[in-house]
Amino acid sequence: MAEDLIPEDNLLIADSGEVEVRPDDRVDDERHDEENRLKPSFISAVHDALEAGDKGAVYDLVEPLHAADVADLIELLERSERTQLAAAISDLMTSDVIAELNDYVREDLMEALPAQAVATIAEQLDTDDAVQLIEDLDEADQRAIIAELEPETRAAVSSALSYPEETAGRLMSRDFVAVPEHMTVGDLIDFLREEGDLEHDFFEVFIIDERHHPVGTCALNWILTTPRGVRLTDLMKRDQTLIPVTMDQEEVALMFQKYALISAAVVDESGRLVGQMTVDDVVHIISEEAGEDALLMSGAGDGDINEPIREAYTARVRWLVANLGTAVVASSIIALFGAAIEQLVALAVLMPIVASIGGNAGTQTMAVAVRAIATNQLTRANTRRILWREFRVALLNGGTIAALIGLAAGVLFTPMMGVVIALAMIINIAVAGLAGVLVPVIFERLDQDPAVASSVFVTMITDSMGFFAFLGLAVAAGLAPL
Amino acid sequence: MAEDLIPEDNLLIADSGEVEVRPDDRVDDERHDEENRLKPSFISAVHDALEAGDKGAVYDLVEPLHAADVADLIELLERSERTQLAAAISDLMTSDVIAELNDYVREDLMEALPAQAVATIAEQLDTDDAVQLIEDLDEADQRAIIAELEPETRAAVSSALSYPEETAGRLMSRDFVAVPEHMTVGDLIDFLREEGDLEHDFFEVFIIDERHHPVGTCALNWILTTPRGVRLTDLMKRDQTLIPVTMDQEEVALMFQKYALISAAVVDESGRLVGQMTVDDVVHIISEEAGEDALLMSGAGDGDINEPIREAYTARVRWLVANLGTAVVASSIIALFGAAIEQLVALAVLMPIVASIGGNAGTQTMAVAVRAIATNQLTRANTRRILWREFRVALLNGGTIAALIGLAAGVLFTPMMGVVIALAMIINIAVAGLAGVLVPVIFERLDQDPAVASSVFVTMITDSMGFFAFLGLAVAAGLAPL
Repeated sequence: MAEDLIPEDNLLIADSGEVEVRPDDRVDDERHDEENRLKPSFISAVHDALEAGDKGAVYDLVEPLHAADVADLIELLERSERTQLAAAISDLMTSDVIAELNDYVREDLMEALPAQAVATIAEQLDTDDAVQLIEDLDEADQRAIIAELEPETRAAVSSALSYPEETAGRLMSRDFVAVPEHMTVGDLIDFLREEGDLEHDFFEVFIIDERHHPVGTCALNWILTTPRGVRLTDLMKRDQTLIPVTMDQEEVALMFQKYALISAAVVDESGRLVGQMTVDDVVHIISEEAGEDALLMSGAGDGDINEPIREAYTARVRWLVANLGTAVVASSIIALFGAAIEQLVALAVLMPIVASIGGNAGTQTMAVAVRAIATNQLTRANTRRILWREFRVALLNGGTIAALIGLAAGVLFTPMMGVVIALAMIINIAVAGLAGVLVPVIFERLDQDPAVASSVFVTMITDSMGFFAFLGLAVAAGLAPL
Repeated sequence: MAEDLIPEDNLLIADSGEVEVRPDDRVDDERHDEENRLKPSFISAVHDALEAGDKGAVYDLVEPLHAADVADLIELLERSERTQLAAAISDLMTSDVIAELNDYVREDLMEALPAQAVATIAEQLDTDDAVQLIEDLDEADQRAIIAELEPETRAAVSSALSYPEETAGRLMSRDFVAVPEHMTVGDLIDFLREEGDLEHDFFEVFIIDERHHPVGTCALNWILTTPRGVRLTDLMKRDQTLIPVTMDQEEVALMFQKYALISAAVVDESGRLVGQMTVDDVVHIISEEAGEDALLMSGAGDGDINEPIREAYTARVRWLVANLGTAVVASSIIALFGAAIEQLVALAVLMPIVASIGGNAGTQTMAVAVRAIATNQLTRANTRRILWREFRVALLNGGTIAALIGLAAGVLFTPMMGVVIALAMIINIAVAGLAGVLVPVIFERLDQDPAVASSVFVTMITDSMGFFAFLGLAVAAGLAPL
């Protein structure tokens, strides 16, 4: 409806004259690079001003920034500088800035502030942001801050905190518009002009029955394009996607994606409307959930560069120790063939190749399977088909690699060595293909996050199988004694 | 504003009586499992009905499904069954279903249909979805279909296709509401009631000057909460985030995330308003872009389980061949120490452990760095700090692992062997930490996607360093001759 929605009589055709592009005024300025990141030069300017203790200069530098950029700036500064900056620009530390901050950085900043100050900040935040601000702090701090809150905010925050972390109850906004069934478009508009405020965004109006259950929803653009007289119940969409207050945030995110939602009603156990979730709150969850698999598969835990070193260490060393265990299993298989290696050092030279490529092939398949499981594309309904698919891909890959390494080894060592390593390679890549699908699928059926532990097992399987198949075949082929 | 926005006089307090929860009626039914995925039992019911050729039964099964679920169903069926199903439920194959389909599956289906049929489908789609439908098909098919389109649609689709793939120009919707500066809230509402339709969603109204440049934007909830007399120019937000029509979809996605946008105006080179992007179009990009890094790092390419096997093979084998090369480099280092291994087979048994753990540590750091780069958290401004951070984490990890393996090897072999492997382990994990950050950062500065090639190089570095440090130290320590 583009053009025709611009009243012809009011529309002048643009003269294609000299008009320089002014896209987002936050892009291509002296503070941002072409990818809309703050320039290092700008960061160091702030850094220098802080060093010089020139609060005025700091303020002038930061003042023009969008809240999201102020948050980025704080994250980019040294830990020690962050509190200095916060002090220098205290009145620029708006709720938007706080909401945009990285969790670790926010927690860090808040712990530096007295409860009273945190409470004052929490007051100006939407409930969901206030909760986010408080939930990471330890019990004592939480209680101290909540005590400082206005009764109304305190009630909202406490009720939010009463839901488990990462559920809709924590994330939902308690600011929404709900009206009774008898209202007309006109009633609603008059009512909104009366009662509404510009502060809280909403994208749909929920129509509720006398039991406070949502019966339907009206997108705002429907209301604006409909005559005053029409009853909301005649306009509304009855088939809504309702979010149970206890639903996990990952499922909420998948719901928003699957049904392309902008906002959705959150209902409690008895079906009453208790809040709404809007897509802008869900977007960062979607990106987190989608991005975390790469980190989990690598065993990097949260993998946030702002995570305290001690936490990063404990998160990662666990998996390295686990990997140490699996590596020992693999090398114990090598030990079985000590005599063979002693006789034919070439085996020791070649065996890591078989193991390494197998590991790689396994990781490829595993990454695909984990992603497909996370996006609900790989379910019980098609597991067998996907397994067969990945097996065929593995045979193609295995054949190709086997041919290459087989020829090379056949020439550089002996023809039989070429045959042995080629066979071992095909076997290991085929096994890798199967393990890459089965391991994550099995973890998923055991209600474990497939991204978390799969790679340790897949690597153990491909390493062990690589050494065993290669050294075993070498002995069987009479290249070396057992 | 929750409660107080529900007119008190109309609001009855809900009796907390026996009310069973009816969250989303698409959840917990006989067709969906608890995670809102279609049940295998349902899939096989459809499968059987198709086998029996009972179109009526198929239709009855599918009819109650939401479009997004119909799309899921098609994806979950065997390739051969998909066209059968499409035929059986032709009038349920709405634009929403097409839009929700996986790219590969959609392309597959479309290629099975005659140009005329595809054109008919494209007609009912929004431009951006129609483009998505057509852009994957080959030149000839594209031209055939575009020829069949209504002039207006054809113009829109052609203009969209004139922009490079994965840019705002391809993704934007050409259906938006733009009005001149002189309008008041009342004028706008009257105008929308006149001209508007319920089909196309919009969440803000763009105010444009006579050159058709956007000068500001009004969220619909502001309009609904404001008296008729107010001029839009007094209500509108002037500070907008404008998307250049040529901007890459990944940057668009980051913009929407960073500034929590619901929709944004798209402007051409001369700054004229040419379209809008809405968050529901961006959400799947955000999730794709965030999810693809895990696949790219593993060398699995697109990593879509619906990707044709041949494409999956060519995408993956490339990296396996590259990995073959790096594995050969590593094993050539082993070859240097052939004599040592001949003398002391224990070296062959232990060396893979050093390499494998180093590889793991490198992958952890790399995953963190790649994610941080993708989310603009790791920039030139803080690279040095992050490098130092990861180095310290690596030393902690290295110390821990070295102690464990050092003790074990010291007991099982000789004390000196314990010292050698412990030192080698610390060195390799420290190197892994540095390589894990530096390799992706360097690729990023060379304008290469850090997720794509980093792991091959990191693994080569950690494998080679693992073998070299361990075998080298062993020789230096006099455990074995060179």
